[in-house]
Amino acid sequence: MSTLSEVAARAGVTSATVSNVLRNRGRVGDETRQRVLDAVAALGYRPHLAARALAEGRAPTIALMVSSIANPFYPEFALAVERAARISGRFVIICNTNQDPLAGRAYLEQIAGTLSEGVLVMNANLDFDDLHQTEARGTPVVLCMWERPLDPPGLPCVAVDFRRAGELAARHLLELGHRQIVAIVGSKRAGIHAARYEGFVDALRAAGVKLPRTCVRHAPDTIEGGYAAARELLELHPATTAIFASNDLPALGSIHAAFDLRRDVPADLSVIGITDIQLARQSRPPLTTVQVPTVEAAEMAVSLLRELIERPPHTHQAARRGGRAAHEPPRVRVASEPTLIVRGSTSAPRRVRG
Amino acid sequence: MSTLSEVAARAGVTSATVSNVLRNRGRVGDETRQRVLDAVAALGYRPHLAARALAEGRAPTIALMVSSIANPFYPEFALAVERAARISGRFVIICNTNQDPLAGRAYLEQIAGTLSEGVLVMNANLDFDDLHQTEARGTPVVLCMWERPLDPPGLPCVAVDFRRAGELAARHLLELGHRQIVAIVGSKRAGIHAARYEGFVDALRAAGVKLPRTCVRHAPDTIEGGYAAARELLELHPATTAIFASNDLPALGSIHAAFDLRRDVPADLSVIGITDIQLARQSRPPLTTVQVPTVEAAEMAVSLLRELIERPPHTHQAARRGGRAAHEPPRVRVASEPTLIVRGSTSAPRRVRG
Repeated sequence: MSTLSEVAARAGVTSATVSNVLRNRGRVGDETRQRVLDAVAALGYRPHLAARALAEGRAPTIALMVSSIANPFYPEFALAVERAARISGRFVIICNTNQDPLAGRAYLEQIAGTLSEGVLVMNANLDFDDLHQTEARGTPVVLCMWERPLDPPGLPCVAVDFRRAGELAARHLLELGHRQIVAIVGSKRAGIHAARYEGFVDALRAAGVKLPRTCVRHAPDTIEGGYAAARELLELHPATTAIFASNDLPALGSIHAAFDLRRDVPADLSVIGITDIQLARQSRPPLTTVQVPTVEAAEMAVSLLRELIERPPHTHQAARRGGRAAHEPPRVRVASEPTLIVRGSTSAPRRVRG
Repeated sequence: MSTLSEVAARAGVTSATVSNVLRNRGRVGDETRQRVLDAVAALGYRPHLAARALAEGRAPTIALMVSSIANPFYPEFALAVERAARISGRFVIICNTNQDPLAGRAYLEQIAGTLSEGVLVMNANLDFDDLHQTEARGTPVVLCMWERPLDPPGLPCVAVDFRRAGELAARHLLELGHRQIVAIVGSKRAGIHAARYEGFVDALRAAGVKLPRTCVRHAPDTIEGGYAAARELLELHPATTAIFASNDLPALGSIHAAFDLRRDVPADLSVIGITDIQLARQSRPPLTTVQVPTVEAAEMAVSLLRELIERPPHTHQAARRGGRAAHEPPRVRVASEPTLIVRGSTSAPRRVRG
């Protein structure tokens, strides 16, 4: 592979001139420009983006903070982020916080602004103060899939209407005729699944169906967490005909619990989740769920972060002073609405069908 | 956060001296050293590893090339790699090749040796010539989980005895009394699953059990691929009592196929896989499989890569000249043996049980 200086030597110019031509910067005469481009073509020179960035003291990467890449949703999201980032010539560094705000802080301190030009945060249980500090030091931060479009955080974000997702799940169960419903919420009461749960409960209430406290379990957002919660709920409320889980993993765990309790899904028990991870399609029976626009949200988040990284420096200063420059991009973008995906895990309850 | 120059000012030394103390380099008197360490403690200064590396023109990252992070095995492996890399102060850039050697080459050209100090390759369908070129340009490359310890490639690697894994799977089915066995191989004939398949077939042959061609399907290494292959095999050979799949995902697909064909697993059909991904535990029934040492292999690969990155420069030159320095680390390391994990997806066939 030929080098910048070989190109410069052949074109009879300095390396700086070659660099200016390739980056459309500086003043270079037309004839010189053509000589450089001819030399580039003749030598098969490919400008080495990463090396160039490093020479400028900048690394063309973005950090993606996730709480655990072992949860299958995150790799799917990371894949979408990586594809979108590659288009803008950037690489993705995956930062697992393992749900630990201290681990998240360590990552932010170590790479934000140096190794990474910007930070995407995907449910990483980070301390908001840490994120604000990162932003204040001049490194853009974007929250991905913020759960409440109408209640934006003080940071740039891509919002998804998860309240609506919960509402769609409730309406589906109600339309099938379910009234004996229990719910598994994959986070703490005020946690990231609260909006989905609210949407679900409000839609039930609007239809005159109550969800007593004993019919709701907060559980870890995993297959195992959903499994244990579903077993408890089904023992406590044997007449249950449908389980709503605020995420696909606990919904899949609920299907496993039904299997072990010899309850047929969907004949004896309907199960619905939210997200539509790949496993939802692959389970037996395949999971009915409310699909959220994962890929779109990833693309929007990368695009917003890119705009924040590439905006002219004086707007950074304005932002740091607490002001907002005229051409600063909007800080909240809302992705498409969630949509119901009906698969094999839901049907009308027996007594209604029979 | 205080800076290096604040520490230097407080200790009454130059920034270079502070840097030397923190890195145990250069000659610094004991008294000066203590003054620097006192200033570091007083100011709560944390040396900023990434910034320091960038200032030296190097980025403390390693690239992990995987064929698709959407396959759940890769995130599990990536997580283990990330943990091990963090201990040596490095970050991991995930590079999805999507099974495309050209995408892999683009990654290698863009980041190897600049943005990444070394490259880990995990079944990324890369062109070996590209990897050799990367190594020849001075960037260490380590293959993770090479499938044939006795037949090492011309690159540093961590090997796992996958032949043994296939053998253990066969012995388990034979001991249970299975003779009507079919096999699903999750790669092409000469592909990365060939060693497992050979081990399986050889163990059957040693027990006098043949595996005719019509009892073997090569299928995509996915749940869907295993599902389709299992349906075909079970239609063609209805007397089948056990399915061996060379990986857990097609094994899980086989369980789904049995479900759809109303064949009970394990009463009507035993299913065994290889790897022991998280989903193996989480399926219904849970999957019997041969566990390979994923976390150990990830740690060994990072450790080998680290040694190659950090070895003194003259050994790089020796390696580039085709020689091998005396203290160069061994290029092939073998991880622990695979082990059988018996779960609910295998049992004796009906007729044997009586």
